[in-house]
Amino acid sequence: MERKGKFITFEGCDGCGKSTQLRKLSNYLTKNGVPHIFTREPGGGKISEAIREILLNGKNSEMTDECEALLYSASRVQHLHDRVQPALDEGKLVVCDRYFHSSFAYQAFARGLGMDFISKINSYAIEHYTPDVTIFIDLSPTEAFARKKGADENDRLEQAGMDFHNRVYEGYLTLAKTDKCVEVVNGRQTPDEIFADVLAILKKRNCL
Amino acid sequence: MERKGKFITFEGCDGCGKSTQLRKLSNYLTKNGVPHIFTREPGGGKISEAIREILLNGKNSEMTDECEALLYSASRVQHLHDRVQPALDEGKLVVCDRYFHSSFAYQAFARGLGMDFISKINSYAIEHYTPDVTIFIDLSPTEAFARKKGADENDRLEQAGMDFHNRVYEGYLTLAKTDKCVEVVNGRQTPDEIFADVLAILKKRNCL
Repeated sequence: MERKGKFITFEGCDGCGKSTQLRKLSNYLTKNGVPHIFTREPGGGKISEAIREILLNGKNSEMTDECEALLYSASRVQHLHDRVQPALDEGKLVVCDRYFHSSFAYQAFARGLGMDFISKINSYAIEHYTPDVTIFIDLSPTEAFARKKGADENDRLEQAGMDFHNRVYEGYLTLAKTDKCVEVVNGRQTPDEIFADVLAILKKRNCL
Repeated sequence: MERKGKFITFEGCDGCGKSTQLRKLSNYLTKNGVPHIFTREPGGGKISEAIREILLNGKNSEMTDECEALLYSASRVQHLHDRVQPALDEGKLVVCDRYFHSSFAYQAFARGLGMDFISKINSYAIEHYTPDVTIFIDLSPTEAFARKKGADENDRLEQAGMDFHNRVYEGYLTLAKTDKCVEVVNGRQTPDEIFADVLAILKKRNCL
């Protein structure tokens, strides 16, 4: 797909400080007059939101891991069509909170579905919408959870426990070594130090 | 996956006479004391039905073809888990009204998504749940629609028109030539003649 704008994604374990960095980036881009959108998935349009509802409904605990992964992939494709491509067409910087690297970390690694299956079902996004850069905020689940002030009991992902989140983290570390679109930022720094690293990466990658 | 029972699927264009044959088979199996279930997809459980609602909602006409295909695949995986595997475990004959060959015919061929993409996103079903036999009732859309007594205006699939259905039919003809699990029955025969062919195939394939 033609890409006038740049497409950047943020990744990390729950509680790694992603939201703080996205807020800082939003302020920076607005202040500097950079046309942009912030988005996340699943979500962004009516269909993606309907899929999101099925995914996050705590009552659907009998959902198979494969079904969950396919629903994320379906929502992803629709989100690319509804939100990402239109903004790229307008030459905007698209900042996405989580993307297919989350499926690799959470589903391929933590759920044990494997890279082959997750790559196959995400082939559309991988082939047509590789990010210009993916920023991974590196903070372990133990450190991340200590920062987090509470969890939504209805959120299935929160119920999975620390073993699951540790496998997610190991997945991210593997991706950081093998996927050249991933840039690692040390999440143990202060928010301002982390943001300085984020800006330096975006400039290095010609996204700013 | 271990399979004590047999898994058979029925395919064909809308209006090909599939429902009549399924009814005849149901009567036959009941009369002969063959333990069995009839099922269809998307559907079969709460999650599959929720996905089905999104798929068949006429208001979701902005859905991308890739998203549609992924939702069918997600529903399929869940349906295999909820309905098909438990019945196979009990040694039952599982009769499914449409399966992944529908995704090949409707999405790979008619929507133009290609066999490679549809094979990738259906890899779980293809690798673990290949049918023991797939019966394709061969009747062209022109002949099939002449038999059909009306269409649900809210059904997105009905809105796609004859060109679409002709491509579906060509897809099925290609699959019949290339996939050894597909057996072709001449749909221009009387219902009783068709059913005699169906029974002969099921016996030949050791499903009865």
